[in-house]
Amino acid sequence: MDNLYIIKIGGNIIDDEKKLSSFLKDFAAVEGNKILVHGGGKLATKMAERMNVPQQVIDGRRITDAETLKIVTMVYAGYINKNIVAKLQMNNCNAIGLCGADGDAILAHKRKHPVMDYGFVGDVDSINTDLIRSLLEKNLTPVFAPITHDQQGQLLNTNADTIAQELAKGLSKDFTVELIYSFEKSGVLLDANDDTTVIPVINPSSYKELKAKEKIFAGMIPKLENAFVALKSGVKKIIIGKAENLQELISGKSGTSIINE
Amino acid sequence: MDNLYIIKIGGNIIDDEKKLSSFLKDFAAVEGNKILVHGGGKLATKMAERMNVPQQVIDGRRITDAETLKIVTMVYAGYINKNIVAKLQMNNCNAIGLCGADGDAILAHKRKHPVMDYGFVGDVDSINTDLIRSLLEKNLTPVFAPITHDQQGQLLNTNADTIAQELAKGLSKDFTVELIYSFEKSGVLLDANDDTTVIPVINPSSYKELKAKEKIFAGMIPKLENAFVALKSGVKKIIIGKAENLQELISGKSGTSIINE
Repeated sequence: MDNLYIIKIGGNIIDDEKKLSSFLKDFAAVEGNKILVHGGGKLATKMAERMNVPQQVIDGRRITDAETLKIVTMVYAGYINKNIVAKLQMNNCNAIGLCGADGDAILAHKRKHPVMDYGFVGDVDSINTDLIRSLLEKNLTPVFAPITHDQQGQLLNTNADTIAQELAKGLSKDFTVELIYSFEKSGVLLDANDDTTVIPVINPSSYKELKAKEKIFAGMIPKLENAFVALKSGVKKIIIGKAENLQELISGKSGTSIINE
Repeated sequence: MDNLYIIKIGGNIIDDEKKLSSFLKDFAAVEGNKILVHGGGKLATKMAERMNVPQQVIDGRRITDAETLKIVTMVYAGYINKNIVAKLQMNNCNAIGLCGADGDAILAHKRKHPVMDYGFVGDVDSINTDLIRSLLEKNLTPVFAPITHDQQGQLLNTNADTIAQELAKGLSKDFTVELIYSFEKSGVLLDANDDTTVIPVINPSSYKELKAKEKIFAGMIPKLENAFVALKSGVKKIIIGKAENLQELISGKSGTSIINE
């Protein structure tokens, strides 16, 4: 099977024009099949402030009301997505920007919760692997904004980490997938405050041990649990590390690799 | 050659949610290859007001400064484009929203003018017919927002009528193209104030005659001149009429058909 890199860039890169340009140059240089998934950074929050749309946050989670959905659709699928695509085109990467409604790429449903109403937030049902495979076959590089749809005409706001993971799981049937989460730290750290304490490889047994010894920072646990779920679904490897080191993340010289054995 | 309908919807439809839904239902029902091109309506102007971005208009032409480009990218390529795509998906039309940067679909350059600086406005250089043909072959329906790029990382604001016409000209090599401009009137009218005076067919000789007798409303002349240019480039037919009558425009029962002979 052909290789496929699915690379998620976090908000800290999107908010920094210089870092973003440099990252996109590196991303464009990655050979073979690749997909980029981006979040929204602080731009949507800034836009909401500028438009006087109050942002509801309950238990640390943002509620996507109708006005907020409009803003994230504009900012994520419009401004950020199209600027990333234009910059990749400049770097000779034939990018095509998509949200989940485009080509019915990512089908989702409005989140149901017994107590909370998250608003227009989508949980992913399925990935249109035929579409994505045919775009990759044409040497196109899909760039996904974190917006999905429900096939009933409703757009939905969906977490970009989740989109990257669902794409990785869905496309593992057709490709040898490596899923790369780039964020502000150098990888999974033994000491959360010391960027030199990266754990280079984690597998299920070493994870068990690290967790038992409470060596894993609490905030990383959901990410790692999700990573092991993805591995069980056929994803070959998950790499967590700094966006500035994309080449090294891919070659295994930087970041934390999460593998099955 | 296969038929291809390229259909442009004007701002008056986009500004009216009910009319837009009804139009999209009709559009989804059009059989065979089709492309939708949309403008922006009044939403971008409203957004600029809400964000306190002053809009410069010189000689009736809007100047696209950096802030205005950001707004039109958000509104056209984000909000309007993705909502249209989601609604077409609801109507079982496998739409894929694109701006000119996506897949390098429409290459343009920043307009040069001896006196005026229009800002980030793009004049079209070329259409990526390979990309569009391959999307159509996959039964996808491209939906274009009026934003292009210059291959140097710059997005550009481009007139939607022009995009529709350039697509029609470019794709005439591969398809029998009918280009449909839908707007608020029923077609080209003998009496601009009487919607029952539609001229059903105009060809070069009848156009000459109508123009000589001053029967053509001045505002229609540039549209018609452009239509004859498109016909010369291989477009089979241009139809001008009301968006609410899409089926009748296609079947020739409504609107004005502009043909070569």
